[in-house]
Amino acid sequence: MKMDKVIGKLAARLPAFEPGHVWLAGAGPGDAGQITLEVAAALGQADAIVYDALVDPSILEAAEKAELHFAGKRGGKASAHQDDITALIIRLANEGKRVLRLKGGDPFVFGRGGEEAFALVQNGIPFRILPGLTAGLAGLAGAHIPATMRGINKAIILATGHAAGTEEDLDWAALAATGQPIVVYMGLKNLETIGAALMAGGLAGSTPAAIVTSAATERERVVTGTLETISGLARSAGLEAPALIVVGGIVAMRAELTALHRMMRTG
Amino acid sequence: MKMDKVIGKLAARLPAFEPGHVWLAGAGPGDAGQITLEVAAALGQADAIVYDALVDPSILEAAEKAELHFAGKRGGKASAHQDDITALIIRLANEGKRVLRLKGGDPFVFGRGGEEAFALVQNGIPFRILPGLTAGLAGLAGAHIPATMRGINKAIILATGHAAGTEEDLDWAALAATGQPIVVYMGLKNLETIGAALMAGGLAGSTPAAIVTSAATERERVVTGTLETISGLARSAGLEAPALIVVGGIVAMRAELTALHRMMRTG
Repeated sequence: MKMDKVIGKLAARLPAFEPGHVWLAGAGPGDAGQITLEVAAALGQADAIVYDALVDPSILEAAEKAELHFAGKRGGKASAHQDDITALIIRLANEGKRVLRLKGGDPFVFGRGGEEAFALVQNGIPFRILPGLTAGLAGLAGAHIPATMRGINKAIILATGHAAGTEEDLDWAALAATGQPIVVYMGLKNLETIGAALMAGGLAGSTPAAIVTSAATERERVVTGTLETISGLARSAGLEAPALIVVGGIVAMRAELTALHRMMRTG
Repeated sequence: MKMDKVIGKLAARLPAFEPGHVWLAGAGPGDAGQITLEVAAALGQADAIVYDALVDPSILEAAEKAELHFAGKRGGKASAHQDDITALIIRLANEGKRVLRLKGGDPFVFGRGGEEAFALVQNGIPFRILPGLTAGLAGLAGAHIPATMRGINKAIILATGHAAGTEEDLDWAALAATGQPIVVYMGLKNLETIGAALMAGGLAGSTPAAIVTSAATERERVVTGTLETISGLARSAGLEAPALIVVGGIVAMRAELTALHRMMRTG
């Protein structure tokens, strides 16, 4: 297979994973083909992998010799406490292991990678950051929604919806006032609150909106509508997290790209 | 090398690149280790690669048998016209070639991938999108600036600065009013205009700001200051495109992460 040769050439320059080091890595939105070469290399070298619920199992299967530590939410149970996860990573590193901290998406985009990196330096543990494709851009691309499109937008806003309706919430009205498309991570359960706040901020109810769940996996589902209808559509469809909400003119591209794409019966 | 085995396992499921198809792919911010497995596989299978100036040469070296077509800006010359690039891609596909359209970063994030995809479907040419790491997130990560940080921001804005000061410009004041960090692509030559517009929109002159040029390459340079000082600092340093401008509290993380990191003398 030619790819082996190609990857061999590229991989020759990748750094070695040293014992006692931690690599904070992103596994991308789901598809194993969408991890980077340096993350693939890390999977092969790691002694311990601390992973979260959004890392696709096919990616972990490729790990060569690592002990696997699950640190995420599953089946309605609360996720491991961040302090416990950080303590585990530090303990493993202090045992002299090559520790791969693997998160779905990108560790620095709503992934607490910054906090973990900060804890590592405070504990004197050498680390590297290996970025991953973030779902809010790559997952949308897979659903044929371009993050930016000439004539539609000159900016894209990535936001988290997990605090919607609380005191710590974002100023959704200010985001709406930019007129730029907004991609909301972790917002499905607060969808009505977020939609109402964006409309109160001046976005028309007719603004195109979409929800993509389990992006870049075989379970992917996409529902499209408008800011006004999307909440009801999501409920009828029984959509479940992980979900991305997208609001803005870029959503309209999907119909054009997908319709023609389907017509040609190609993946 | 263990990595070969790991990558082999992951690669087994990657789709084959069919003759006459076009894959619109992102090469990431620069580092060859940061391309995805599916892009590496595409390099090995492509008959023709149409690439732009931001694709690192080390990535193209790995191409196996492809004819290379440069379609970008170089040495002050104007870049190829988008219509000409699109026509080239379509011609190559119609000749039955496997065409890899490879762009720096992500094709759908200020990369005109949406326009090219649209042209392909209009011409009945099957295509796939292979997302890449976008410089505005991955390039920042390499400079130890996390895109999001608990306690600092709940959103991140990616914007293009190429139209700053023109009639088609973004509403920088509205972006400033969100209070969220802003990453500006292609903004170096309009840095003063953009900085002034953000301050006019309410951002304090003391807001942390940074410029990262040639992110994720050996030529990377990082200059940090404030919204008020960054323009002068960039000029004194003689910074050159490609550049990312980052404005917001996340910039302050770099000093903490980098200082401790350096202390430990690790990469």
